[in-house]
Amino acid sequence: MTFIEKTKHAQRQNQSLLCVGLDTDWRTLPEILKSESNPVLTFNKAIIDATSDLACCYKLQMAYYEANGELGLQAAHGTLEHIPTQVLTIGDVKRGDIGATSELYSYAYQEMLPFDAITINPLMGYDAVEPFLRREDRGVFILGLTSNPGARDFEYLELTNGKRLYEEITDRAREWNASKRNLGIVVGATKPEELRELRRRAPELPFLIPGVGAQGGSLEEVLAANGDGVALINISRGIAGASKNSDFAEAARASALKYVEQMRQLSRIPS
Amino acid sequence: MTFIEKTKHAQRQNQSLLCVGLDTDWRTLPEILKSESNPVLTFNKAIIDATSDLACCYKLQMAYYEANGELGLQAAHGTLEHIPTQVLTIGDVKRGDIGATSELYSYAYQEMLPFDAITINPLMGYDAVEPFLRREDRGVFILGLTSNPGARDFEYLELTNGKRLYEEITDRAREWNASKRNLGIVVGATKPEELRELRRRAPELPFLIPGVGAQGGSLEEVLAANGDGVALINISRGIAGASKNSDFAEAARASALKYVEQMRQLSRIPS
Repeated sequence: MTFIEKTKHAQRQNQSLLCVGLDTDWRTLPEILKSESNPVLTFNKAIIDATSDLACCYKLQMAYYEANGELGLQAAHGTLEHIPTQVLTIGDVKRGDIGATSELYSYAYQEMLPFDAITINPLMGYDAVEPFLRREDRGVFILGLTSNPGARDFEYLELTNGKRLYEEITDRAREWNASKRNLGIVVGATKPEELRELRRRAPELPFLIPGVGAQGGSLEEVLAANGDGVALINISRGIAGASKNSDFAEAARASALKYVEQMRQLSRIPS
Repeated sequence: MTFIEKTKHAQRQNQSLLCVGLDTDWRTLPEILKSESNPVLTFNKAIIDATSDLACCYKLQMAYYEANGELGLQAAHGTLEHIPTQVLTIGDVKRGDIGATSELYSYAYQEMLPFDAITINPLMGYDAVEPFLRREDRGVFILGLTSNPGARDFEYLELTNGKRLYEEITDRAREWNASKRNLGIVVGATKPEELRELRRRAPELPFLIPGVGAQGGSLEEVLAANGDGVALINISRGIAGASKNSDFAEAARASALKYVEQMRQLSRIPS
């Protein structure tokens, strides 16, 4: 199954565009988990059990796992094993290096940790991205226009060809995606106008859209701007961080349900 | 001691600009190491013992350690512990993410693995870089102009302000470096003409220069183009991969010595 088929299948199954972000910070977990042998893994499993019929995707921000050393690596492995196979997994790693090095990162985050998709930083160009595109069943989201304030520093720069840098990156993503249909872009939810234009520019590309909720993006605006395009809408703190008490899993489910109901009402989910 | 002082101290001590790259691939180690409990660590220790009076710096390409799982993480820790304190360590991680996530990467690669410096991808802008700049004793090298063919895709793009993207990145690095003097840029050795121009543009910035040897960069051209600027010249396969047999450490020393003698002859090393 190609990545795009996998994505539509996952979205159809749970009637959802929701990607639940598991940016699990071991330093701020609910008190009740502190005695667990791997509190992050226990937390993630509880969130997954509470939301896996509502999410089409889980995204692990790998910084949280890397900064937790070997325990973090074990938590990442255990979390991937716990996610039902029909639900997608994304490794938010934002890697990108010369070809030989990207091949190793591809081994690390497509095989060793078998994510369905990963995020990649395209600054170093095609040979930095290509090794991740070789498997048509594994998706790649390159950074297009990010949700943070620093996006203004380089991503918005105007080029002499009339485009902004993020538009040029999007056009390249379309070219690089031509054969396998496993490449998409990251577009921040905090910029609905630009999202709307990028959707017009690249109707066929899957978009990974972070930034709804804590970072300030509005789900309603994002859905309107995205229209009918394939989109995975990531919400992290708004779901997995909905409560810091022992009811964290129930609170996550309640929050996820609210978001998913809004999605079902306002967007066309594959059926 | 600030990062720039540390760097000059290390270079003065061993009269060297050489950064030895430890891109240690566990799959292609000399046969003689295969029975070791952590072959990568044993290999790295032998290379360090053979070259630490010749190198001012060791650079670990973290992809090789990440793709080796827990054993790789242990090898990275053990390698850092084995490097003499007066010699610099660089973690080639090319991270870069929204601020809160960059803070975690900073914890992972400036504290947990206490590298003296790390490489950072600046595409997401200032808030992605800033968390790494907070400690004046820790250096940051942001990608300026890389040595790979894909550098043509985005880094060379012409901006309406008359600069190329890599020049704009370099100018920003100068601004961001103003207060602490712990920020430099990566400039590939395969582009000596651009290196010369960037050195003119940013005489005070430390340059990390990879790409001499296996990637095709010429040490002589690099030294001429860099002039008197602070530079760490990285050589990986040409030293640590000089022999695949049991004489790998002696071969690494012989190769390192040849490069360092050329540096001593052709450049002004801090004295």
